[in-house]
Amino acid sequence: MGALSDLDIARAAELEPLTRIAERMGIRSDLLEPYGESVLKVRLSARDELAERPRARYVVVTAVTPTPLGEGKTTVTVGLGDALNHIGKRATISVREPSMGPVFGIKGGASGGGYSQVVPMETLNLHLTGDLHAVTSAHNLLSAMLDNHLYQGNALDVDQHAISWRRTMDVNDRALRNIIVGLGSRTDGVPRQTGFDITAASEVMALLALTTGTRDMRERLGRIIVGSDRSGKPVTAEQLDAAGSMSVLLRDAIKPNLLQTLEHTPVLVHAGPFGNIATGNSSIVADQIGLRTGDFLVTEAGFGADMGAERFFNIKCRTSGESPDAAVVVATVRALKTHSGKYTVTAGKPLPDEMLAESPEDVHAGAANLRKQIENCRLHGVTPVVAINAFPTDHASELEAIRQVADEAGVRSAVCTNVVDGGQGAAELARAVDEASAESTNYAPLYPDAAPLREKVETIAGKVYGASGVDYSQQAERQLDSCERNGLGNLPVCIAKTHRSISADASLLGAPTGWRLPVREVRASAGAGFVYLLCGPIQTMPGLSRNPAAAVIDMDENGEITGLS
Amino acid sequence: MGALSDLDIARAAELEPLTRIAERMGIRSDLLEPYGESVLKVRLSARDELAERPRARYVVVTAVTPTPLGEGKTTVTVGLGDALNHIGKRATISVREPSMGPVFGIKGGASGGGYSQVVPMETLNLHLTGDLHAVTSAHNLLSAMLDNHLYQGNALDVDQHAISWRRTMDVNDRALRNIIVGLGSRTDGVPRQTGFDITAASEVMALLALTTGTRDMRERLGRIIVGSDRSGKPVTAEQLDAAGSMSVLLRDAIKPNLLQTLEHTPVLVHAGPFGNIATGNSSIVADQIGLRTGDFLVTEAGFGADMGAERFFNIKCRTSGESPDAAVVVATVRALKTHSGKYTVTAGKPLPDEMLAESPEDVHAGAANLRKQIENCRLHGVTPVVAINAFPTDHASELEAIRQVADEAGVRSAVCTNVVDGGQGAAELARAVDEASAESTNYAPLYPDAAPLREKVETIAGKVYGASGVDYSQQAERQLDSCERNGLGNLPVCIAKTHRSISADASLLGAPTGWRLPVREVRASAGAGFVYLLCGPIQTMPGLSRNPAAAVIDMDENGEITGLS
Repeated sequence: MGALSDLDIARAAELEPLTRIAERMGIRSDLLEPYGESVLKVRLSARDELAERPRARYVVVTAVTPTPLGEGKTTVTVGLGDALNHIGKRATISVREPSMGPVFGIKGGASGGGYSQVVPMETLNLHLTGDLHAVTSAHNLLSAMLDNHLYQGNALDVDQHAISWRRTMDVNDRALRNIIVGLGSRTDGVPRQTGFDITAASEVMALLALTTGTRDMRERLGRIIVGSDRSGKPVTAEQLDAAGSMSVLLRDAIKPNLLQTLEHTPVLVHAGPFGNIATGNSSIVADQIGLRTGDFLVTEAGFGADMGAERFFNIKCRTSGESPDAAVVVATVRALKTHSGKYTVTAGKPLPDEMLAESPEDVHAGAANLRKQIENCRLHGVTPVVAINAFPTDHASELEAIRQVADEAGVRSAVCTNVVDGGQGAAELARAVDEASAESTNYAPLYPDAAPLREKVETIAGKVYGASGVDYSQQAERQLDSCERNGLGNLPVCIAKTHRSISADASLLGAPTGWRLPVREVRASAGAGFVYLLCGPIQTMPGLSRNPAAAVIDMDENGEITGLS
Repeated sequence: MGALSDLDIARAAELEPLTRIAERMGIRSDLLEPYGESVLKVRLSARDELAERPRARYVVVTAVTPTPLGEGKTTVTVGLGDALNHIGKRATISVREPSMGPVFGIKGGASGGGYSQVVPMETLNLHLTGDLHAVTSAHNLLSAMLDNHLYQGNALDVDQHAISWRRTMDVNDRALRNIIVGLGSRTDGVPRQTGFDITAASEVMALLALTTGTRDMRERLGRIIVGSDRSGKPVTAEQLDAAGSMSVLLRDAIKPNLLQTLEHTPVLVHAGPFGNIATGNSSIVADQIGLRTGDFLVTEAGFGADMGAERFFNIKCRTSGESPDAAVVVATVRALKTHSGKYTVTAGKPLPDEMLAESPEDVHAGAANLRKQIENCRLHGVTPVVAINAFPTDHASELEAIRQVADEAGVRSAVCTNVVDGGQGAAELARAVDEASAESTNYAPLYPDAAPLREKVETIAGKVYGASGVDYSQQAERQLDSCERNGLGNLPVCIAKTHRSISADASLLGAPTGWRLPVREVRASAGAGFVYLLCGPIQTMPGLSRNPAAAVIDMDENGEITGLS
């Protein structure tokens, strides 16, 4: 890549007219709505129009437990989509919508990198078509309706101390984590403590990712629980008369966005829920459209296979009824070396020098993590393929070590150099995925809907995480009972734990066993359609660093953006 | 109109392809960016491309001091634009972008009404192209950068008790008016009291309305003052390194939106600043484009002529350098009857029965307000025309009474029935405006840039408001001195007072004299480019009522919006 930044590469790209890309996907132009120059929204009716077309193979891209630097899951997703075209297959990609918090915070944009990018990256990372803003608006309208209900006499007898619904904003702003609202005079509302989460953490965002259509979205919005009344009964958005207006605010946000890669592969970008307290997967409706537009649909699931992929299998696919045909597990030399326990990798800092020395032994020492994440795919009946995402600092012997681990596990693998070489650099991966996905799939969720919530948690903890058991706090026990009593026992569960370990303890590397999962608190995302369990501290509103990206992003004399990465 | 709601009429409308409308305006298709089906953004470069085309006549629509029900300024603006086409002239309309707060609050949308509407009204009133969201994001990024600065060590020595910069959200939410942020643990920020304003009240919105281009916007953003350091010196967005990122967030918001009326007259919808603490006028850039696209550009200024039109003349046109050619003063029977002092009109309630009885005497009794608002246009050298906006409950003798008042003032007038009849119902007004605007204009701002701030205030108070003098609080005196000292003395002033009276006391009807203007507090919108003076309580964050519109707005089985008005 030399001195070219991601933004330089993205800017130099010649975009193909999206209507032509949509035409190749078989989507008629009257089903498209343009937004600016280089993004389209696809109407949901496209799904019905395409229903008779052959179904693509459904491939999810997941990873080993990542370092704080990330292992390039998005670049592999983009590279694989591009590469499938190189081997004569037509692929569509589906990914999440980026949050603006990280764009102006520390991480930068979420459009891939190098020669595996979704473009235009500025549009993708800045507002896109306003879906996140629509989620923010719908979420905060419910908050305003709730506080107005308290102010106007509280006819529903809402217990102010049992309100779980907060507010959201798409910005990194630690000062908003814990606030008191309603101060001032008597006409300025009812004082109470609450706070803001970043928009990606909103249940409305999780709901947008899991809804199967407009009517379904309206109903799910009504089922959102904001807290309880003083007898302990849940209070919903429907009871607050807010769900109708919320659905109206989301009427365009429910339509997937179509962009393209640098190599003109179609990319559906839609919904962006958090990967800990929510599913970390892009939307069902985008995938259902994408599954009728070619030979492959390649999608990405957040964090390691114990996190995003587990929710992909047990929440997203359960809800959509779509069966995956293969899972790509992204592994890197630096991640497996980290799992050896010898090195410490820090966010925003380069790798420690000693990590750059050739050491296939360290890769083998950390390989337990890869083996377990491979198994986590197989647990759901889906064939894994290991994508060895190569970095310029890797040594051939180290890449080969990962290949050996895959071979021993009986799994196909391929080295990917697509960040430097574009789609051609992932052609071997594409062939491996083509073969793996041609095998008959035995996909099945890990537990039935009817299992009690505790059994669901214990199944995931034992089988996916390798825990020896689950410990519930008294509060969690009470909350689980309350969920079962309120008819939420049939929902799937989403376990919010650290993504830095397969366990609930970020310091445990590799594939830890003999530990117990501590469930501190249980909350219902009844609208989105899952119950989530907090196992350790989860930050739902990031802060800005001492040197945030916002301080260097600017506009030059010609109105061009500078400093965005 | 019978039983048809505004939404019914708007839905039944057949829209003309906007590209064809733009073609009639002389705007090439490569200067347009589509957003969804029925809105375009116009690139700023269109202004340069159109610079050689003949300049349209520039007409501002203002009004008498309104009742809480509003006097139909937007419907007259739309009707006049449509009517000009009926008399063989090509007109473009420019109006403000609606805030979603009122849409879900009490007032409903802001798209006109009956057969004088901007369409599609759902798109106009819900997100539009996301400009308000971009303003919200830019505003709150600065807030986050400011709180992060405090948290990271406060190198600029910002005085926490002298921070004026708050946060914004486009929702009616009284609970957010006064809040404490930064609670929680040490890593959750610095505790301090602050609050949220509705997005329309953001200085960023005022700035968007007053900027003359992308580079100018970047510079104005840097000049925004967020508070002062402990020595009393202003602290700016530039010093906080936030202005570059803010400009990047606004790079699409600066492009005007193009929609159409029911009769396919082009409407530029752009920026929506508050009418009390800001200018209450749509954007300069939209007007500069619109002024090169036909024979007339018709724009609207918020509230009565003492408010929006005064800022149009003294702030907007001063900043843009564009000269207006005529001013339309909208008058209604119900408003002048109210100014007689005999009746009380309440927001959200029908007129009192006794007001519906025929009484041209009451109209004459309240006519002083109309005479003063006519004079307020003449003060700036601009020829006024009275638009008598007829309601079905008006009596012919009452409409005639308004005409007599106009005649006696030597001003053209015309009865408008466009809400019921469409543009044809404002044809007489269009002819009057055509004649008036053909006279040579003597437009000049009321005071020079170089006048001291106090002299500017006293000029407006005396000449426009009819006050006998100005009383400054001690705080205001100090703040005025500070503004002069900090080099802001050359800015125009924006006097934030009630819009229910030409005076600063909402209970004083007609054209009150012999009162003094009380200036309580002075603040600098140094980025937007004016100093504003608070004269009485100004609510910058509305609340929801007991029965908010949000409770009845919904989506039906077919995904169609219901209950939006």
